[in-house]
Amino acid sequence: MKIVITNPSGLQEKHIQELKQLGEVEVFDNTNSDNCAERLKGADIAVIDCFLTPVTRELLIKSPSLKFFSINSTGFDKVDVEAVRDAGVLFSNVPGFSTESVAELAIGLMFAVNRKITLADKDFRNGLYEVDPNTQESKKYQNFNLRGRMMGVVGLGAIGTRIAELGNGIGMNVIGYNRTNKNLPSVKQVSLNELIPESDVIILSLALNAQTKGIITKEHIESMKKSAIFVNISRHDLVDNQTRKNSLNNNMIAGAGLDVVDKDFLEVKNTVITPHIGWLSHDSYENMGRIISENIKAFVNGDPINQVV
Amino acid sequence: MKIVITNPSGLQEKHIQELKQLGEVEVFDNTNSDNCAERLKGADIAVIDCFLTPVTRELLIKSPSLKFFSINSTGFDKVDVEAVRDAGVLFSNVPGFSTESVAELAIGLMFAVNRKITLADKDFRNGLYEVDPNTQESKKYQNFNLRGRMMGVVGLGAIGTRIAELGNGIGMNVIGYNRTNKNLPSVKQVSLNELIPESDVIILSLALNAQTKGIITKEHIESMKKSAIFVNISRHDLVDNQTRKNSLNNNMIAGAGLDVVDKDFLEVKNTVITPHIGWLSHDSYENMGRIISENIKAFVNGDPINQVV
Repeated sequence: MKIVITNPSGLQEKHIQELKQLGEVEVFDNTNSDNCAERLKGADIAVIDCFLTPVTRELLIKSPSLKFFSINSTGFDKVDVEAVRDAGVLFSNVPGFSTESVAELAIGLMFAVNRKITLADKDFRNGLYEVDPNTQESKKYQNFNLRGRMMGVVGLGAIGTRIAELGNGIGMNVIGYNRTNKNLPSVKQVSLNELIPESDVIILSLALNAQTKGIITKEHIESMKKSAIFVNISRHDLVDNQTRKNSLNNNMIAGAGLDVVDKDFLEVKNTVITPHIGWLSHDSYENMGRIISENIKAFVNGDPINQVV
Repeated sequence: MKIVITNPSGLQEKHIQELKQLGEVEVFDNTNSDNCAERLKGADIAVIDCFLTPVTRELLIKSPSLKFFSINSTGFDKVDVEAVRDAGVLFSNVPGFSTESVAELAIGLMFAVNRKITLADKDFRNGLYEVDPNTQESKKYQNFNLRGRMMGVVGLGAIGTRIAELGNGIGMNVIGYNRTNKNLPSVKQVSLNELIPESDVIILSLALNAQTKGIITKEHIESMKKSAIFVNISRHDLVDNQTRKNSLNNNMIAGAGLDVVDKDFLEVKNTVITPHIGWLSHDSYENMGRIISENIKAFVNGDPINQVV
């Protein structure tokens, strides 16, 4: 049995050693669409970095020995699922490897927006060493204690559920919106129309698809509290962004924390923006390598896990 | 009975109304050492903003009618306590009004340092819209999930205790150092020498005094984990700062979050610094006004609370 790892994808030496007990293992670096088919020659099993090498019909046709592959992400929009079916190949994804990391960034952004941490750090470096509370200037640091305030989580999947847990853990009350009933003891499930105006902090944690695109409407944004903080660690197409920009620039809400690629927000007031780093942590990489290795072992043992096709 | 409020100090209209049931109330703005004695003429009770008007022997001598005053802070280093005793006056402080606010900033700084939020926000504004994990550049965002990691809290007073609770709430294990035994069920109390090398996040929450000055030594800093995050929401004289600067600039620890007036750290790597905003929140102001009003009512009722002298 030949196992080809096209890019490291979080696999550590200990994982490679485990895989070597199942067959011959080849590990590559810098594999991309140009050299992938060549490197997959004779492979029964592969780990494919689908961000660098999308799994196309062409690649599958050029790799006739392939029986199973694991990708290195939860989403599989970079895989031609139909072509995989046609080729009679199976594949697994890596669910949940970054749940904690993304949830913790959401909480970090909430604190950063509430306490104006990026602004405060910049002010300090520009010479404001101690805020005088008797000045008008100190007003820009206005914030509220999070304890006892209401967090509204939109989307109670794995990440949203963990965000809700963290909200409870720091002493916030938590309400949540989800299409289906999730039965979380500390989270009161409400409609989206109820959630938005009741929340002091609104955190969006939803996959983007035809049903969720634009789910946060102009009317929702206009019904937010003036003191509300909005955090989005999902895609920005979930939101009516024009209204959100206006609402931020007109102080209709207090601020926003965004981990989404959304250049339009560069000039918008009261935002903390990170360049899609939610998933990025040592632990996420470790989980990724561990789950990919488990995916391969499970397939070899005849009992596949995390199987998409 | 005449009550003089020299500066608002968080007192709201509802508090003023309550105080008016006890006697004549005069409210001033912009009171300072030059005009305070004049404004206190005939006052039995006063609220004194001790940051703008330190309570000196001279002021007390010029205000012979004064029987009781409340300051607007927890610390009373701006009050000449000896002179207050000599004048036969009583006074109360405002303990705990900003406990939650300071504790939440400590947690916010921990998240900001761990997830490089100030750096990420700056990078985004400089054109890095999406981090490519396959590049060397992405390495600067290295961090670990906080869940399951060890938080070490130095000082388990009201603020340190709340920081420890928040650490537990987000799924961290918590150890703490305190001179006396605090009996906190979720916090294992250890010596400072044990705490430092075991902690992934070290949070300093101590009053500065002769016993605590320089309590974090060169040896302590050198025994920190290479991946450790250091957070200080107390005074910087608690720490051997020269060693800490070196350790940060030489990547001996991962980073630091500081809410202290410490210009020396402007050029130091991997820091998030805020200009002493820990206590600053709407809720702190509300608590301050409420507690000052309670202090006065308790004195008038013959059963003073929060009494220092």
